[in-house]
Amino acid sequence: MKLFTEAKIRCQTLILSDFSSLISTQMGALRLPSLTSIFAVSSCRSPSFLRRSRQLNVRKFTATTKVFAQSTPATEVAPAESNQKLPVQEQGITPRSQDFNAWYLDVISMAELADYGPVRGTMVIRPYGYAIWEAIQDYLNVKFKETGHSNMYFPQFIPYSFIEKEASHVEGFSPELALVTVGGGKELEEKLVVRPTSETIVNHMFTQWIHSYRDLPLMINQWANVTRWEMRTKPFIRTLEFLWQEGHTAHATPEEAEREAMQMIDVYTKFSYEEAAIPVIPGRKSRVETFAGADRTYTIEAMMGDRKALQAGTSHNLGQNFSRAFGTQFADENGQRQHVWQTSWAISTRFVGGIIMTHGDDAGLMLPPRLASIQVVIVPIWKKANEKNEVLDAALSIKDVLHTAGIKVRLDDSDQRTPGWKFNFWEMKGVPLRIEIGPRDVSSSSVVTSRRDIPGKPGKVFGISMEPSVLVPYVKEKLDEIQLSLLDKATSFRDSNIVDVSSYDELKEAISQGKWARGPWVGSDEDEQMVKEETGATLRCFPFEQPQGPKKCLMTGRHIRNQLTQPN
Amino acid sequence: MKLFTEAKIRCQTLILSDFSSLISTQMGALRLPSLTSIFAVSSCRSPSFLRRSRQLNVRKFTATTKVFAQSTPATEVAPAESNQKLPVQEQGITPRSQDFNAWYLDVISMAELADYGPVRGTMVIRPYGYAIWEAIQDYLNVKFKETGHSNMYFPQFIPYSFIEKEASHVEGFSPELALVTVGGGKELEEKLVVRPTSETIVNHMFTQWIHSYRDLPLMINQWANVTRWEMRTKPFIRTLEFLWQEGHTAHATPEEAEREAMQMIDVYTKFSYEEAAIPVIPGRKSRVETFAGADRTYTIEAMMGDRKALQAGTSHNLGQNFSRAFGTQFADENGQRQHVWQTSWAISTRFVGGIIMTHGDDAGLMLPPRLASIQVVIVPIWKKANEKNEVLDAALSIKDVLHTAGIKVRLDDSDQRTPGWKFNFWEMKGVPLRIEIGPRDVSSSSVVTSRRDIPGKPGKVFGISMEPSVLVPYVKEKLDEIQLSLLDKATSFRDSNIVDVSSYDELKEAISQGKWARGPWVGSDEDEQMVKEETGATLRCFPFEQPQGPKKCLMTGRHIRNQLTQPN
Repeated sequence: MKLFTEAKIRCQTLILSDFSSLISTQMGALRLPSLTSIFAVSSCRSPSFLRRSRQLNVRKFTATTKVFAQSTPATEVAPAESNQKLPVQEQGITPRSQDFNAWYLDVISMAELADYGPVRGTMVIRPYGYAIWEAIQDYLNVKFKETGHSNMYFPQFIPYSFIEKEASHVEGFSPELALVTVGGGKELEEKLVVRPTSETIVNHMFTQWIHSYRDLPLMINQWANVTRWEMRTKPFIRTLEFLWQEGHTAHATPEEAEREAMQMIDVYTKFSYEEAAIPVIPGRKSRVETFAGADRTYTIEAMMGDRKALQAGTSHNLGQNFSRAFGTQFADENGQRQHVWQTSWAISTRFVGGIIMTHGDDAGLMLPPRLASIQVVIVPIWKKANEKNEVLDAALSIKDVLHTAGIKVRLDDSDQRTPGWKFNFWEMKGVPLRIEIGPRDVSSSSVVTSRRDIPGKPGKVFGISMEPSVLVPYVKEKLDEIQLSLLDKATSFRDSNIVDVSSYDELKEAISQGKWARGPWVGSDEDEQMVKEETGATLRCFPFEQPQGPKKCLMTGRHIRNQLTQPN
Repeated sequence: MKLFTEAKIRCQTLILSDFSSLISTQMGALRLPSLTSIFAVSSCRSPSFLRRSRQLNVRKFTATTKVFAQSTPATEVAPAESNQKLPVQEQGITPRSQDFNAWYLDVISMAELADYGPVRGTMVIRPYGYAIWEAIQDYLNVKFKETGHSNMYFPQFIPYSFIEKEASHVEGFSPELALVTVGGGKELEEKLVVRPTSETIVNHMFTQWIHSYRDLPLMINQWANVTRWEMRTKPFIRTLEFLWQEGHTAHATPEEAEREAMQMIDVYTKFSYEEAAIPVIPGRKSRVETFAGADRTYTIEAMMGDRKALQAGTSHNLGQNFSRAFGTQFADENGQRQHVWQTSWAISTRFVGGIIMTHGDDAGLMLPPRLASIQVVIVPIWKKANEKNEVLDAALSIKDVLHTAGIKVRLDDSDQRTPGWKFNFWEMKGVPLRIEIGPRDVSSSSVVTSRRDIPGKPGKVFGISMEPSVLVPYVKEKLDEIQLSLLDKATSFRDSNIVDVSSYDELKEAISQGKWARGPWVGSDEDEQMVKEETGATLRCFPFEQPQGPKKCLMTGRHIRNQLTQPN
């Protein structure tokens, strides 16, 4: 047990950031409800949410339509090669720079990612938004299996008494439970909790399945819905019910559990960088911010477009907290009974919100190609009715070529919209690459491409050959470029908004500028709380990547030395 | 509307079967709660369930181990080419012929398909059982997208008032609802229903999304958990919470909705035949058995190994029942407001129970190759320690070859069990094909294969070359043969247990023999109810495939003529 109990905090570099209660208090895997209640009541924000929340499901991408209807006859004869762009305001999306939160809700509404459910705080995930979640699932599901986990399913109804068994767990979760008290027309003898997370029921079952060291490690995952009775909600970021995966594992040794917890935060980190193009900072949470029931919590912290922090995924080393509470024991090779060592880890539909807020711009959503359900949209352009057929034929054949090559492509051949409207529409929907094809392109057997991430002329390339042997590799290369470019841009943005600080005054200055502060820290829980109260910033994590050499704590001034061992 | 309201029941061939309340009253898509309450209280069965339900999670596959430990020293030196089989009783599985229900629960327990959850009536789906559900999902998910549906997600909490809006829906579902009455520590103003099915909340949202005919058809699906407060439960077949997919569509015309409902029952039928090797009978439900809120319900009816009927999937033409209740309207091409025409359709984890009960035998589970998570198990056999390496090397290389060829293969190389134990174990787990490899096989570069569906010597083939170019096509061919053979066997069994009857006396005779009865029917709802009360059999469906020529109703004696049009 030495590894876990004797290590001391010697040196940490921490990241503090101006912390949005609505962004960071609820997350995939772990909750810190004592903080939740403090930060959730962010009065300057909620009125605007509440007002907008009524509008979400009625706002439509119609303003543009109307404008085009005035400037262009709404006939089959659409303006050729139209590259007209409407001022963003006329599309109905609030500019991101003007009101980030309003912009976020506008994007969700107009790109048809989600809508409000009839019960306060619930969300309907619409097909275009759900497709992002499916892409996340497809990737992670493979990685979980590659790392030895099997999927299974636990019931969502948990006896209330289970929640009470682990002391810090009940303290953390009891304020926000949904309770089933009536079933089949009768009052239930024991009220049932609609799962807020499954550690308790998992341990109840593990206790029955685990007998000897031969049954270990036991490594499972489930894709499920969970319920937490939140008072302030925001689509994807914090909803009463959300979707997630929760991994649960049991091991014979603390070292193995620690390796597992680290392995899974590593899976999340790779996923964030390589698939979502989000340069998260992986690290360990402070004691104050550790999951209710865990010994340690590892996290990936992401910087959103408004420089707020988003806890995008977590992995917990649960130690023996739940196995002691539930008596989950195994006989080791010497026949001795021991409690198992456990982990749990999760990523939720919150991550979809993180993607929107990392990459989006004034024009709307911007999806990383690897998670986009439509990677390429083809917009055919014709002036005269007699041009229509040849343009559509060429567009269809390009679509088939790209589809066969495994590229997710959509042809927008509707008669009812102008090319200019379609350009705006698919940009708003975040499609990474557009292919335009008009009569002149058909004559020259070429197409025009336009990158979502580079607005206007600079993002356009003319005269790309339609020849499959040219077009397919070209499109694939462009998608790869866009994927990398999104990551680069987000990384630059992140790095230019993190300030290295060496005193509390410098920290306050950084936070007041809306930036993140990074600096050595051996302060107490009380110091951490004070920072939060005085600056609104929370300690996001102790990053795994630590600067070398001796340091002085920014808060206490105490000298601290770097340690190779994990802090505790 | 003529198509839907003016047609009369003219001629129907019906299938009646001895109907097990625990098999047929709860199902994937539709519930007939008025029947549920009558049939669920099948007193002769429940005590046995209740007794066994306490045992499910403690029974282990250990008896065999013990027996082998007596006859064979439990050392690394295992009996070579052992083909010993234990009497089935000693494996701990109740023989199927002795007590079908006990056998079913034993298989679920010992093959580790599922376990009971801590809340009465709930089920934990364990990895080996969940893998069957994942295989079902993988197939159907592709088919749903191919037929134009998108996945999305609706909240599971539904305001109680929604359930009350459609008259027959509330009558059907209200007795078995789970209600959330407390959230975040407070009594809720309006109690929330944990979804038993989603037609109401779907229509609430559709009403906001559908404006004109251009928004139609709207075709979506969700993979979700649902809750129904059942009094008698049985793993997979009927549980308080189960997993399913529910498709929901809205159309501009009744013809289109009818085509969609038929298309989806067709998808289910093909899936059952081609993937699950279950020869379901597709047809229409009687008025009495139609979904609470539907105009028509189509069903696939499967015969289990005890000749009981299982409603394995359903597709409903909802007409305008929900669109009228929720005001789901669209403006047609002439600008006229009309209510949409709708369908819903579902298959649930119940289908996993259907697979177990269709194909299993005294030795345990038998999985159709296309849904098996392990299609081939390799059991290495060695006598002397010095043989171990060469045998394991050969086994590993065969495993790699098959894996590379896309075959789901598992090598059981554990030292702790004898080959004989492993044979029994993997047969019990239902793995379609076993490859045995011992020292003599290594010398001759060949293997022995053994089919799960043909017990003992007749299912064995010796001397199959290890050469990949021979072995891979051989294994693929065998798996295809097994897949077809399971379907053939189930079809023969089904057909030999359906009796064509032309009078009520013949019907009673067939049912009393435990068979299904098929015959012409224009009886009333009251007649149908009487048959159920007098014989215990329910009208399963009017099969799509109808005999030609005039017929006389078995119940009323009235002459009826075949109609090409769908009956109503």
